[in-house]
Amino acid sequence: MEPGPHNAITDVAGVRVGHATLISGEGPLRPGEGPVRTGVTVIMPHGDSLFRHKVRAAVHTINGFGKVFGFEQVRELGVIESPIALTNTLNVGLVADALITHAIERDPDIGISTAGTVNVVVGETNDGYLNDIQGRHVRAEQVQAAIASASAGPVVEGAVGAGTGTICFGWKGGIGTASRVLPKAGGGYTVGALVQSNFGRAEDLVVCGVPVGREIKPPPRQRVALRDRAVTRDQEVTRDQEVATGKEGSIMIVLATDAPLDARQLGRLCVRVGAGLARTGSTLGHGSGDFAIAFSTAQRVAHAPGALAEMQPVVANEGKAMRWLFPAAVECVEEAVLNSLFRAETMTGRDGHTIEALPVERVVELWRRGRTI
Amino acid sequence: MEPGPHNAITDVAGVRVGHATLISGEGPLRPGEGPVRTGVTVIMPHGDSLFRHKVRAAVHTINGFGKVFGFEQVRELGVIESPIALTNTLNVGLVADALITHAIERDPDIGISTAGTVNVVVGETNDGYLNDIQGRHVRAEQVQAAIASASAGPVVEGAVGAGTGTICFGWKGGIGTASRVLPKAGGGYTVGALVQSNFGRAEDLVVCGVPVGREIKPPPRQRVALRDRAVTRDQEVTRDQEVATGKEGSIMIVLATDAPLDARQLGRLCVRVGAGLARTGSTLGHGSGDFAIAFSTAQRVAHAPGALAEMQPVVANEGKAMRWLFPAAVECVEEAVLNSLFRAETMTGRDGHTIEALPVERVVELWRRGRTI
Amino acid sequence: MEPGPHNAITDVAGVRVGHATLISGEGPLRPGEGPVRTGVTVIMPHGDSLFRHKVRAAVHTINGFGKVFGFEQVRELGVIESPIALTNTLNVGLVADALITHAIERDPDIGISTAGTVNVVVGETNDGYLNDIQGRHVRAEQVQAAIASASAGPVVEGAVGAGTGTICFGWKGGIGTASRVLPKAGGGYTVGALVQSNFGRAEDLVVCGVPVGREIKPPPRQRVALRDRAVTRDQEVTRDQEVATGKEGSIMIVLATDAPLDARQLGRLCVRVGAGLARTGSTLGHGSGDFAIAFSTAQRVAHAPGALAEMQPVVANEGKAMRWLFPAAVECVEEAVLNSLFRAETMTGRDGHTIEALPVERVVELWRRGRTI
Amino acid sequence: MEPGPHNAITDVAGVRVGHATLISGEGPLRPGEGPVRTGVTVIMPHGDSLFRHKVRAAVHTINGFGKVFGFEQVRELGVIESPIALTNTLNVGLVADALITHAIERDPDIGISTAGTVNVVVGETNDGYLNDIQGRHVRAEQVQAAIASASAGPVVEGAVGAGTGTICFGWKGGIGTASRVLPKAGGGYTVGALVQSNFGRAEDLVVCGVPVGREIKPPPRQRVALRDRAVTRDQEVTRDQEVATGKEGSIMIVLATDAPLDARQLGRLCVRVGAGLARTGSTLGHGSGDFAIAFSTAQRVAHAPGALAEMQPVVANEGKAMRWLFPAAVECVEEAVLNSLFRAETMTGRDGHTIEALPVERVVELWRRGRTI
Repeated sequence: MEPGPHNAITDVAGVRVGHATLISGEGPLRPGEGPVRTGVTVIMPHGDSLFRHKVRAAVHTINGFGKVFGFEQVRELGVIESPIALTNTLNVGLVADALITHAIERDPDIGISTAGTVNVVVGETNDGYLNDIQGRHVRAEQVQAAIASASAGPVVEGAVGAGTGTICFGWKGGIGTASRVLPKAGGGYTVGALVQSNFGRAEDLVVCGVPVGREIKPPPRQRVALRDRAVTRDQEVTRDQEVATGKEGSIMIVLATDAPLDARQLGRLCVRVGAGLARTGSTLGHGSGDFAIAFSTAQRVAHAPGALAEMQPVVANEGKAMRWLFPAAVECVEEAVLNSLFRAETMTGRDGHTIEALPVERVVELWRRGRTI
Repeated sequence: MEPGPHNAITDVAGVRVGHATLISGEGPLRPGEGPVRTGVTVIMPHGDSLFRHKVRAAVHTINGFGKVFGFEQVRELGVIESPIALTNTLNVGLVADALITHAIERDPDIGISTAGTVNVVVGETNDGYLNDIQGRHVRAEQVQAAIASASAGPVVEGAVGAGTGTICFGWKGGIGTASRVLPKAGGGYTVGALVQSNFGRAEDLVVCGVPVGREIKPPPRQRVALRDRAVTRDQEVTRDQEVATGKEGSIMIVLATDAPLDARQLGRLCVRVGAGLARTGSTLGHGSGDFAIAFSTAQRVAHAPGALAEMQPVVANEGKAMRWLFPAAVECVEEAVLNSLFRAETMTGRDGHTIEALPVERVVELWRRGRTI
Repeated sequence: MEPGPHNAITDVAGVRVGHATLISGEGPLRPGEGPVRTGVTVIMPHGDSLFRHKVRAAVHTINGFGKVFGFEQVRELGVIESPIALTNTLNVGLVADALITHAIERDPDIGISTAGTVNVVVGETNDGYLNDIQGRHVRAEQVQAAIASASAGPVVEGAVGAGTGTICFGWKGGIGTASRVLPKAGGGYTVGALVQSNFGRAEDLVVCGVPVGREIKPPPRQRVALRDRAVTRDQEVTRDQEVATGKEGSIMIVLATDAPLDARQLGRLCVRVGAGLARTGSTLGHGSGDFAIAFSTAQRVAHAPGALAEMQPVVANEGKAMRWLFPAAVECVEEAVLNSLFRAETMTGRDGHTIEALPVERVVELWRRGRTI
Repeated sequence: MEPGPHNAITDVAGVRVGHATLISGEGPLRPGEGPVRTGVTVIMPHGDSLFRHKVRAAVHTINGFGKVFGFEQVRELGVIESPIALTNTLNVGLVADALITHAIERDPDIGISTAGTVNVVVGETNDGYLNDIQGRHVRAEQVQAAIASASAGPVVEGAVGAGTGTICFGWKGGIGTASRVLPKAGGGYTVGALVQSNFGRAEDLVVCGVPVGREIKPPPRQRVALRDRAVTRDQEVTRDQEVATGKEGSIMIVLATDAPLDARQLGRLCVRVGAGLARTGSTLGHGSGDFAIAFSTAQRVAHAPGALAEMQPVVANEGKAMRWLFPAAVECVEEAVLNSLFRAETMTGRDGHTIEALPVERVVELWRRGRTI
């Protein structure tokens, strides 16, 4: 299948993406102050009030070792009613709160009148190797900026927004995106993926089938010290270093489509992201919080429906579209992860920790030589 | 089965409960300012670092129309590693953030060293009929105060903490708790429940089998106006009034036990809370976010285990304890809901909205007359 | 809400119910031979080929201690494509096989051509106290007979079909059914339930809010002997008697509606059956396999759809219908259980085991006296 | 990681595998008679009564388009109490019934005394392109034979037992198995997988990272005719040929380990099989029923426990073993699928349908050339 015009989630008509990137300070970590290497990325299914005009949606947890917000209500009601925000692990509470503020500004009767409250959706990965994650530096200001800057068209990838401080297969990861257009026989629908990549062990990296991770290795990582604070015996950690510093990481995956999938079908689409991850070398590690969120822009679901029931377009279970939608999602996820690696540049953060960009030329060369390595 | 000494969740040894209650202002709602009728309630499985010494746990969503925090990781790993906090719907983000702050203060290497990040657990119901819920008045200060005040022994019930502004079966609801001690043949274990009650239609209330809701009705509620702000056509709401103003409400239920249940068994315990709710008249309404969280104090799970595997005490699937644990949970939940009603006092909040306390003497009289009503 | 014309699941237009009842032999159990007290009940969403014209459906497991057939595919695809059959626990394999035979006879290309295979749905409870359950006496002949006799209109209740040998709250249970018609404001839809009741402890029985189980008790049950076969030490059973002989039992619940619910919404309907069970006194016991299956007759889903996507009628999430559908399901389930008790007659089975019919007059008298008991 | 001595699921001590293979007849399909190309494969966690001495277990549904038996109770209780049998799709009912017969013969009080009934576990894939699947030729005799022949040590792979008639990536699939031994640091545990492979599109096949499916194609398949029976208009099928004839197929995966995982942890292990499948080229197609079953031999769970609670060995959540167990499962599943392909021989079945064996030498040559293809 071919990618859409931008090879991005924004190839699904109406979808917008915005980033706010926070890079400041350098040198030793001063917890709560910096250095800061983090941000927020928002994905908006459309540009109107999502609270008034929800979209059909589903979520799926591959490995629940993570701290997402808003999943229960999406599961129950099958809709998303806010922008989706991605950020760092400890910032989820504040970013959720900022989305609530945004929703109230847009729909001032939320929580007051008969409108009920709002369910916001936030995902995260842990950028604590480069970033002062305790500082929770993403505030309402950044979330508002990301939303304000959200646009259709090309998406900036790599070490931006929620991907500013993330690490993928030992190299600098970040935001990646990709899209696929189904053939006419499959309905001509578009599927797009956007990922915040922060997972994988260096030796496992596979690029388009070539296990390049066996050949090229990132420089060894600095030992993460408990620093110059008093550490009581109780706080000492005997757990294996690699696991805990996020080398196993996590990934957030957002899927969008204009195919009229219902919530159950979107859930099935989400399940397929696991195959896309596996193609890049993931074994869905213990410590990797792997989550998927999918929505369809094909129909808006009214907050205040005028009728008891309505006619909704839904893809036929046994029709030809399903044959193409699943592989499209798998391909998008695989390529979005690779794009996040290919676009990210070397980043130095707290304590001088440095994560190198993937050496693209070397990877391409290995890919050309293929399995002979 | 008999209740424990305090008929409270704190009858499970080591469990502590603390509240912070916010009551200020009166008169017309000024969104973001007041009047304030809300709070936070924390349940602590034990008094040490929960991050270092986790407890086995499970969560269960009966009806996912709600905004809980931390459920995915509890499902995946079967442990809770922070105090459990209950608050109002729009305050979940800030309360989660406050719990993160608390965890960092206690374990300063969270997110920095090999310790990884922390998964905090927050539940909520909507108190917007009485409270300026947009104001999100519960801040880190209140969460810290609730934790600091948490204690074993008797639990204050009714319109306190997270129950300050809630409504149950049309009457003033709030925090309620109860416990049951299994007979010797069942292991002599204790089961306790604590609820934040905010659900139910007045006409459905059943007290100990007597449908008192058919006889006694709370005064009609004021119409919730969109107030003196400009409301665009797009924001107008045609949805049915009763549904949206929280009359269908929600309930958060926390179960504790000293029986050595594993995560799977605690999940089964959670499922039973639905039967406790039904006994009070609930039909698990569309708009009612009904969630359960259960933990066992029988064993601490080390954050940094010293061995690959360990011996854990686990209740036998087919042993006698399971026969008693399930009815004990059902009884606790039923009584905790009723206690929340019996202990709550009349509350007047925003816009002069008043929710009356359940007329206890009248209920007792009806109960005495029984089905002849 | 009012019941439909027959107060039966068949009040949902098109739904048919058929039974085949097997009663033969008396005296001591001869495993594999008799006495036989069992049967099969089939529920057909409509009278045409269900394989070609599926119905939207969902399943829900409250307590999975049971042996249902076909649930995974219903969860995945959201449709039912065969009659639903209920029978005894050990007979599920043969009854599933009989449904496959029936499907092949109706659609002879199943498994051969491009039609794929068929997913049949079977539920069960354990009637081994009265019935030679090892004999698996329900064969293709009985399944065919039940299907052939399936009809709209009044449903025979009590000790018939799959309810021939079941026990409910210590009294003779069986098949029960009930229906509710939503008011015009809720769409005027019909909801129906049919249950195979085989659960509950005698002391827990509640009839319309009156705990009659505290007052009236069935005669003590005979001890179930290991009989005159050699029993090795390894086979000896020390488990508590009451648990294992089915006193905790199980229940299968089938819900039907003509409301155009999609699979997700039907799943939500299924969750509510727990509240209906609780109203009769259930605490969802460890050994009680409690399962629900729901389908909507509002739309047929083509096995071989002509288009990639189609317009489907779906009830609005936030519309008024959901407010009525959930209580309707709860009421139907409660009444269907009570009807199964009120209609069943005393049955004597294997080894002279006798289960008495509920003494209806005494129950009515208690109900009149109400809570004064 | 290295494989165990037999590179088979039987490298997990105590595990036994047995097959019964049915090959008879040739020429045109006579539905119900033949030709027969099917069978049954049984996996036994140990050689004693599984009903009396259960093993901890979990199940996981990746794509529920399939007809497994016994999953609900494994989910609820976390144990397996019968041999696991794999067979063809329409044979599940009869094979389940045969396992019940086997269980009764071994434990004659099942269903009679306090022992309760038995939950048997059966999986399947559709072998209808080669086999007279309507005939359901696997009967109790074959199941008994497979159980009787079950043994430790080397496992016969390819077109045997439940794999006799299956198709994988367009080539002859079947039974495959593999194992991995964890390093000492990971506990030295063994993980084994056994698969019944029947999935995948020819063009997607990937062998050890090399997309050989792009280069080598199986001969085109015969069109599956509706044969010489009258076909009414209603039965005609317009669905796409490829989807329905099982080209998308299905896979059953059984995992065994001697690591003391509890049911929750075994469920996490099951989730990882998706990554193993993806490595071979699967995109988890719509029509592919992909199911996993995992058990641990580390501890036997008594049917009739002597105590209320007991000490159980459990792998530490955060210990080092989890780091190795997940990749081990992924590797085992990938290799088991490839082994099923490498070991299967060309098979001709009904209507002269022929499925060729994978041309192993050509694959090896392509693999040597690697990505240069």
